[in-house]
Amino acid sequence: MRRFLDLADFSGDEVRDLLTLAQRLEEHPEPGALAGKILGLVFMNPSLRTLASFQAGMARLGGTSFVITPGQGTWQLETRDGAVMNGTAAEHVREGIPVLASYCDALGVRAFAEGKRLDEDLREPLFSLLDGLCGKPLINLESAVNHPCQALADWRTLDESGVPERGKFVLTWAYHPKPLPLAVPAATLHMAAMRGMEVVVARPPGFELPPEIMDKARRAAAAAGGSVAETSDRAAALAGAHVVYAKEWGSTRHYGDAAADARLRAELTEWCVRESWFARAAPAAKFMHCLPVRRNVAVADEVLDGPRALVLREAYNRMRVQMAVLHRLLA
Amino acid sequence: MRRFLDLADFSGDEVRDLLTLAQRLEEHPEPGALAGKILGLVFMNPSLRTLASFQAGMARLGGTSFVITPGQGTWQLETRDGAVMNGTAAEHVREGIPVLASYCDALGVRAFAEGKRLDEDLREPLFSLLDGLCGKPLINLESAVNHPCQALADWRTLDESGVPERGKFVLTWAYHPKPLPLAVPAATLHMAAMRGMEVVVARPPGFELPPEIMDKARRAAAAAGGSVAETSDRAAALAGAHVVYAKEWGSTRHYGDAAADARLRAELTEWCVRESWFARAAPAAKFMHCLPVRRNVAVADEVLDGPRALVLREAYNRMRVQMAVLHRLLA
Amino acid sequence: MRRFLDLADFSGDEVRDLLTLAQRLEEHPEPGALAGKILGLVFMNPSLRTLASFQAGMARLGGTSFVITPGQGTWQLETRDGAVMNGTAAEHVREGIPVLASYCDALGVRAFAEGKRLDEDLREPLFSLLDGLCGKPLINLESAVNHPCQALADWRTLDESGVPERGKFVLTWAYHPKPLPLAVPAATLHMAAMRGMEVVVARPPGFELPPEIMDKARRAAAAAGGSVAETSDRAAALAGAHVVYAKEWGSTRHYGDAAADARLRAELTEWCVRESWFARAAPAAKFMHCLPVRRNVAVADEVLDGPRALVLREAYNRMRVQMAVLHRLLA
Repeated sequence: MRRFLDLADFSGDEVRDLLTLAQRLEEHPEPGALAGKILGLVFMNPSLRTLASFQAGMARLGGTSFVITPGQGTWQLETRDGAVMNGTAAEHVREGIPVLASYCDALGVRAFAEGKRLDEDLREPLFSLLDGLCGKPLINLESAVNHPCQALADWRTLDESGVPERGKFVLTWAYHPKPLPLAVPAATLHMAAMRGMEVVVARPPGFELPPEIMDKARRAAAAAGGSVAETSDRAAALAGAHVVYAKEWGSTRHYGDAAADARLRAELTEWCVRESWFARAAPAAKFMHCLPVRRNVAVADEVLDGPRALVLREAYNRMRVQMAVLHRLLA
Repeated sequence: MRRFLDLADFSGDEVRDLLTLAQRLEEHPEPGALAGKILGLVFMNPSLRTLASFQAGMARLGGTSFVITPGQGTWQLETRDGAVMNGTAAEHVREGIPVLASYCDALGVRAFAEGKRLDEDLREPLFSLLDGLCGKPLINLESAVNHPCQALADWRTLDESGVPERGKFVLTWAYHPKPLPLAVPAATLHMAAMRGMEVVVARPPGFELPPEIMDKARRAAAAAGGSVAETSDRAAALAGAHVVYAKEWGSTRHYGDAAADARLRAELTEWCVRESWFARAAPAAKFMHCLPVRRNVAVADEVLDGPRALVLREAYNRMRVQMAVLHRLLA
Repeated sequence: MRRFLDLADFSGDEVRDLLTLAQRLEEHPEPGALAGKILGLVFMNPSLRTLASFQAGMARLGGTSFVITPGQGTWQLETRDGAVMNGTAAEHVREGIPVLASYCDALGVRAFAEGKRLDEDLREPLFSLLDGLCGKPLINLESAVNHPCQALADWRTLDESGVPERGKFVLTWAYHPKPLPLAVPAATLHMAAMRGMEVVVARPPGFELPPEIMDKARRAAAAAGGSVAETSDRAAALAGAHVVYAKEWGSTRHYGDAAADARLRAELTEWCVRESWFARAAPAAKFMHCLPVRRNVAVADEVLDGPRALVLREAYNRMRVQMAVLHRLLA
């Protein structure tokens, strides 16, 4: 294994093997497995869980890490090919990435979507470039439309929580003041489809997931014996759910148009997840969210502080599954 | 020991035991004592000594650390309970802290006072919350009105410098262009009282330490056989001092009112510690300050660069006593 | 060895010994050589290579490091002696540096030129001060007019690439929208002179290197059997070059005068290194640059992506030669 960029690059069995390895490393720690190994972490966008869990996971395996934050202690990195660099970026990823890769044994990179053109972001232009530039194992710490570490942690959380492999998984849109990227909804949708679940996406009109993302998930579902549907009828979607996974994302109808997006979402503040959503429709459903979450804006305190919330366990599992990925890439 | 939040949580003997452990670890290093252990450090405010000395101390015991700086590489953290999070903070400490704690073996947090309402800051609202949220050993890296690591380092410095346990300890206010928090004056006052010293606080009118802080110190002094007094007569306070500890802090009369504070302090620029303060009053007195210090504003070069200054040793002792705290919490 | 501040502090043989050590450590790694050792890294200016390569190099030798970034997580540091500190800097290097040094086993500091007065910057006022303040081995991570780590890495790169010791080394000015410091041109010039090469500096009128820097290099060249010349005739300089080293720097005629510098450089955008520079004049010449580089502003894609470019190897060699420096200082 030389790349961990997309859960879709692996078979269901390969994913389950990674989860088995995560379990083994929790039960039988290998504090020297990555002794002498160095992980480079490049954050072009903010982070809490990823930043802390990769450093902690690497240390628990005996390795070390360093962090580079372009625009903060390090200059901004240009990513466009052929750019005439007379703006703010002082270095191009064509130099920055191979140089950092040459210092370490594996490189993780976080770079959110540009959020201007949907077709452009769906192509993952930066990670396509990085793939060719990085001579060492490469890990996607969240890209334009993917977040495989989160998806893998969520899979483990579902397994641990007794959510049936054929259970009903509802991915619901949630309100947020700003149009957030599609990385987590796309990755979590794909994960649930790969796991063979009955997946329903509930989102208001204008926030449909792009056909490219839906079709990719449908192919994964077909291979695994599950299904993928999409609706704006939230109540119908929630009925009988085993798990409700909330995520905020931007309007795909008005992608890159902040003003039009803002007008659309201004009417949607009631998409704040509350206990009333579950009361009759899915009283035993678990609740998931990748964090960070705006309390009482995207999700009410009563849900986050109640017994159905798995959010802290999802976050803890980030470290556990990433240790398996690091072990597979480097041990 | 699961918490290091306030020197007042420990008896004098327990503090002396920590100092003995610090000494033992200096004389007989234990480079593998914390092998495999991970310290998480959260800085909601800037730092130099704390940031460097905890990382260095952890490394000297064989452990590792990671640093999280909300608002810089990590989003800002909301701390108010029940908040509707539609502002700048993207994550609540109710998620952030348990998540970070789940990655590490001990967590240190720095969060200065809000500086708006004195009664509020005196309650230490954030650390009360953190205490319940953090499932791992928790260390106060400076809170609203406390800084136990600094206090412990200062105690060691007094011991090393031959300052008698019953000696006269003068905590003097010093000028600074801005109203700084009460954390260090409160912690150092308490430390000197716990050590059994004759403590006198010298400060201009309007900068009285709050009764809650004074009373707490008086109780500690009573238990230890010392005393605590407060005066605006600086010359009288300095007479016969064994040690003069300077610290800048904001007006308590005008707490949270920057304009009124500024008018009051504008008249007080002569509270810049100079050699003339010591000349006849206390020629052999040692000089202490927790750093950082504004030279020739709060303290003159002649004092900082002269033989009575213990400031560098205080800073070095931060690492030494924190190693003892880490050892006690994690070894 | 207690200091690594300037390549000129060492003889040619001592430099070659360091390069031999770098080679040995690459071929025969010593993963425990610096076990228990701690490197403090202070960055008053941004960094990518230095930040990552020192941390990675230290880890590869079994040691650890911590990073301090004044103005970002740590307050700004005052550097002027006798300053009345009523501005933005909250701490003086007279405290900050000895304190940090007391936590670690070696300290690296980056502090660019102030860029106001050339005579002042040529004196290296900050590093002269640091030399006296730092009780531990001290490493120059780039100062006002020096960058010995870069120079040492470049020397190794020349050796590896088969550039003859008596070969022709052309240091050429390159366009950049801003007046950059003299540290790299001064250090690389000195390195090539010490290596005994035929050195020619090609730069437009107004960008002459200061006589102090030229004279120092000429003395090194004389001792090593090489030569140093300067010209504004770029074509003549390039003819027969074995290696062309490009670097951007500010006008020395208008040092500290941004407006006059801008007027002068506005006419010089054609000093962007292109393949046409090499075509007939030096078809086999290697191309070097310390990075970061503004593509298609200072150097064209065709050069950076072509076979003559050694820039990635120079960057990789930063880690390799710095490991030798750390080993010599600390093992």
